[in-house]
Amino acid sequence: MVKINENYLKLPGSYLFSTIAKKVSAYIEANPDKKVIRLGIGDVTQPIAPAIIEELHGAVDEMGEAGTFHGYAPDLGYGFLRELIASEDYIPRGCEITADEIFVSDGAKSDCGNIQEIFDQNCKIAVCDPVYPVYVDSNVMAGRTGEYDETTGKWSNVIYMPCTAENHFIPELPEETPDLIYLCVPNNPTGTTLTRDQLKVWVDYANETGAVILYDAAYESYIAQDDVPHSIYEIEGANTCAIEFRSFSKNAGFTGVRLGFTVIPKSLVRGGVMLHSLWARRHGTKFNGAPYIIQKAGTAVYSKEGKAQLKEQVAYYMRNAKVIYDGLKEAGCEVYGGVNAPYIWLRVPEGMTSWDFFDRLLEEASVVGTPGSGFGPSGEGYFRLTAFGTYENTVEAIERMKKMPSLIK
Amino acid sequence: MVKINENYLKLPGSYLFSTIAKKVSAYIEANPDKKVIRLGIGDVTQPIAPAIIEELHGAVDEMGEAGTFHGYAPDLGYGFLRELIASEDYIPRGCEITADEIFVSDGAKSDCGNIQEIFDQNCKIAVCDPVYPVYVDSNVMAGRTGEYDETTGKWSNVIYMPCTAENHFIPELPEETPDLIYLCVPNNPTGTTLTRDQLKVWVDYANETGAVILYDAAYESYIAQDDVPHSIYEIEGANTCAIEFRSFSKNAGFTGVRLGFTVIPKSLVRGGVMLHSLWARRHGTKFNGAPYIIQKAGTAVYSKEGKAQLKEQVAYYMRNAKVIYDGLKEAGCEVYGGVNAPYIWLRVPEGMTSWDFFDRLLEEASVVGTPGSGFGPSGEGYFRLTAFGTYENTVEAIERMKKMPSLIK
Repeated sequence: MVKINENYLKLPGSYLFSTIAKKVSAYIEANPDKKVIRLGIGDVTQPIAPAIIEELHGAVDEMGEAGTFHGYAPDLGYGFLRELIASEDYIPRGCEITADEIFVSDGAKSDCGNIQEIFDQNCKIAVCDPVYPVYVDSNVMAGRTGEYDETTGKWSNVIYMPCTAENHFIPELPEETPDLIYLCVPNNPTGTTLTRDQLKVWVDYANETGAVILYDAAYESYIAQDDVPHSIYEIEGANTCAIEFRSFSKNAGFTGVRLGFTVIPKSLVRGGVMLHSLWARRHGTKFNGAPYIIQKAGTAVYSKEGKAQLKEQVAYYMRNAKVIYDGLKEAGCEVYGGVNAPYIWLRVPEGMTSWDFFDRLLEEASVVGTPGSGFGPSGEGYFRLTAFGTYENTVEAIERMKKMPSLIK
Repeated sequence: MVKINENYLKLPGSYLFSTIAKKVSAYIEANPDKKVIRLGIGDVTQPIAPAIIEELHGAVDEMGEAGTFHGYAPDLGYGFLRELIASEDYIPRGCEITADEIFVSDGAKSDCGNIQEIFDQNCKIAVCDPVYPVYVDSNVMAGRTGEYDETTGKWSNVIYMPCTAENHFIPELPEETPDLIYLCVPNNPTGTTLTRDQLKVWVDYANETGAVILYDAAYESYIAQDDVPHSIYEIEGANTCAIEFRSFSKNAGFTGVRLGFTVIPKSLVRGGVMLHSLWARRHGTKFNGAPYIIQKAGTAVYSKEGKAQLKEQVAYYMRNAKVIYDGLKEAGCEVYGGVNAPYIWLRVPEGMTSWDFFDRLLEEASVVGTPGSGFGPSGEGYFRLTAFGTYENTVEAIERMKKMPSLIK
């Protein structure tokens, strides 16, 4: 009789976004005349840029002709894309990253979720709290996290690094030494960042302790301030301790197109083994490459026209971020993020939980956001709004929020 | 100090197809005037059919307009594709499979490789021998296979079910009861199949023992004979013991397009848990859906024009299969497969190993094939040729082989 992986059963049943979806459905049913504005899920709304659409059409045509048809892609991605990533995203920033250290994939979520496989079963993970749920959940499934405590919202074998207004959202070095350190910068959900100096502390720490930093830079293109690094490899010493995840979802609107990449420097060695070779083996065995047409689309992200169009797209969303940030500030709220990231992290009014505020926001303003507690215990008392809506809806949502009885102090 | 997953290090270093690639490169360098014909790797050569190209263009245009742009896809796939799969691939064959039991993915390789995660660490797997290497390798990585014996080519904790000419390539029920049974029908690499009655034996066995059958039907569209089932769910009782993997790679040439699906009936329960819910959780946590434009392309596979065009494509490859099969038979070879599958499985001349024959074939005919021993110990003494080349090359390759001194008895 086969046995199932019992670790899966440890995962709390109600997933954040499905609970939200249910509450919103119930609200809409009860209030059919209200226009609900969604500033909840981190999905983009702007269509794919013209330069990318053109590249996609060209690649589709290639697939229809025997002479230019492409079958199985190289396991680690086409050279044309890997070279472009190295020369556009890394070399100009002074990072020593070469094309063959880049693994093209179908997105950062898959890579963030799968990377834990190449590490030992007994590795101890450290996560910022609050955090993107995939880091913890994928380790729960692998049996690394111990037991879940409903009261504290914590797993017994996970090191939590609280990031709250009190410590300016800067994780402190943990007392217990972790093996794997997940960092998401700019952060989802708080929208906050680390400066070069702040990140250097972590790189040094990882090199000293032999830990590996799993660095999620999916929101890199939203960075506006000079002292915030776009890649961890801008920090000296990162090549021997860090794996970086990047995505085309947020800089180019590829949430439904699916393309990302992971960087593992060949100098990142643990137990005498290059982690690069382990990940290459995983790619070769359990993945068959991102589609040719999608990899070609990725090249247009780096073309002159593509860059110009995407710069506008990012600016569009960051204008939304400013509308949210400034509007709520004006209303007297305590707000964070929104400067180097498309997320605004809001302190909920005193005496309310994150879910209380979710309900009030929906009831009083017909606006959907995400309760901070859904991202971890230290997210309690906070709330996430995203800048990925349309400008018009964003403006309207903030106007409505400003009139909310529960927001006015 | 982080530790790596040491199971990865147990995998034998030289991967079959990379060894082949090196030998071929060396041959080409030494013989620059020879035209090498590749009948080795199972990649297709015909371009994507016109109906699918048209659908792709349409979907690309949708992504470029705000009103029809698609962001994150539903975790388990778009309803429009899942409904079509259920109504086209399953209902007409009498299978009780509904759309919500179908999980759309980026291909059967990913799914075959990842499915083992939802089972317990101590599950014992059984594989046909020879077999597609992903089944075993993904379990090696998970630490289920014990140690590798270089002499026998076997893992200590894997149940091997030899499939050779002696037992007509029909796996026998193993002495030791396995938890997970991998079956690939039509088979890669042997090109042989199981009839309904033969498959019924396995379904009954799995239901009796509580094992789960992992049924890889990637080559289903090549089935020509009536008594060979296209899906395991044609067999009574399969809904309570089998997971089926399907691919668009071989029926529609999607090796570089990437689309597949996995079926887990809701009635498949082990330890009181629906396997469907475990796989849904994995999809939701570690995967972000197949691209919208690719899922739309999948719908064209089922359109009237698409079906007609793909029928021709399959017929094209099967004409090649017949050329190979008949030609080698005529030359006095012992050949199998090629009737319900695009693979021809050839007994190598007496006294030679599979790799000996690989070298002779390359030397004497400039033809590349795949040594049977690369698929498992019982593949020794056999050789795989694929029908996925062009017709002209296939004819030429066989003409050359007929003249090979080492083939003529």
